[in-house]
Amino acid sequence: MEISVIQDVLEESNAVAKENRKIFDLNRVFVVNMMSSPGSGKTSILQRTIPVLQNLGLNCAVIEGDITSTIDSERLQPLGIQIVQANTEPFGGDCHIGSHLIKAALEYLDLTAVDILFIENIGNLVCPAEFYLGEDCKVVVLSVAEGEDKPLKYPLMFRECRVCMVSKIDMIPYLDFDLSLLEANIQKVNGQLEVLFNSAKTGEGISTWVDWLLRRMEDRNDRK
Amino acid sequence: MEISVIQDVLEESNAVAKENRKIFDLNRVFVVNMMSSPGSGKTSILQRTIPVLQNLGLNCAVIEGDITSTIDSERLQPLGIQIVQANTEPFGGDCHIGSHLIKAALEYLDLTAVDILFIENIGNLVCPAEFYLGEDCKVVVLSVAEGEDKPLKYPLMFRECRVCMVSKIDMIPYLDFDLSLLEANIQKVNGQLEVLFNSAKTGEGISTWVDWLLRRMEDRNDRK
Repeated sequence: MEISVIQDVLEESNAVAKENRKIFDLNRVFVVNMMSSPGSGKTSILQRTIPVLQNLGLNCAVIEGDITSTIDSERLQPLGIQIVQANTEPFGGDCHIGSHLIKAALEYLDLTAVDILFIENIGNLVCPAEFYLGEDCKVVVLSVAEGEDKPLKYPLMFRECRVCMVSKIDMIPYLDFDLSLLEANIQKVNGQLEVLFNSAKTGEGISTWVDWLLRRMEDRNDRK
Repeated sequence: MEISVIQDVLEESNAVAKENRKIFDLNRVFVVNMMSSPGSGKTSILQRTIPVLQNLGLNCAVIEGDITSTIDSERLQPLGIQIVQANTEPFGGDCHIGSHLIKAALEYLDLTAVDILFIENIGNLVCPAEFYLGEDCKVVVLSVAEGEDKPLKYPLMFRECRVCMVSKIDMIPYLDFDLSLLEANIQKVNGQLEVLFNSAKTGEGISTWVDWLLRRMEDRNDRK
């Protein structure tokens, strides 16, 4: 009985995600679902990434997921892009973005004027990994301050994502952080996961990440 | 209909937590529920704290909560204390420790030989805050690497806890971290929350935290 309820919820969630996907395809929007622990630097990465994409003539938009507050949306506002703040507090304080929330957010976006849509998920390494929202790719951001053991302790997240952005690398000299141990731990849970490095503080690694995004967009266009 | 299901779950959870509480009272065990984002340093704090308590003649035990892996339990093993690894993976990969898991873990502990039991919850600033496990006090650990905005974005966690341990303060010189802004943000969501500072790397602040714990234990004994 209980299991069938859970199945219904997941089935309904996937059905809505597929509706979102149809809308993205119709508008030729590439969608990136960014996930991480709280405070790993997702917003800071977007602040660095979006101007580079804008310089290439690409229009960006962001759906900002939070339980409450508009802090991250306000940080992105100077970029002059379309932003929707999607708070889960009215939905019971959900710890992840659900596909229904993306569907609701799309009502506020003019997707005909968007090439890339970033979904900044709620800071949480667990539940966001479980839900397909209709995105093209899932990205996990992991700050070097969080330690090398995270892939082993939160394996679903690292299995679901196509790329792991190791963030705040400017802090490595001040930490006991073993990069090769992190890479070995990632290898254990997902040998296919690409690993990129960046510092939103210095800008290091942002162009490599942008190149990665552009290749994924090309791959998608080739498929169609 | 859906709401009544949720109520049943919470009611059942609280009923089990009260059973746990009775067992703790019977054995005069003081129980601390430690919560935080992934990688904020809960285990490192325990590695520093427990030897200080042992030197004061207090017996400690730990219930280590994780989705999967025994990494943190292995780190604590050299302390020679009773440790139970409580993994949620067999329970659907829950993103928090439930009271039923504590109840199950207690089967493996000899509480007659324990003065303080630490529950290291799963790394997650959201859902763990929602569940009473039978503990005496809830503690939130927040690393300075996570940013000053976390109380505003995860308010329930900061409202439920009695103390916020600001961790990794040795890293402050290398970050753009504004301590007074963090304190102002904490004040906004919970004016009663005590704020302590520590570095598990240098040991700074650990004795203040131990004093805080000892006072809470005395308060409890005075009440009985």
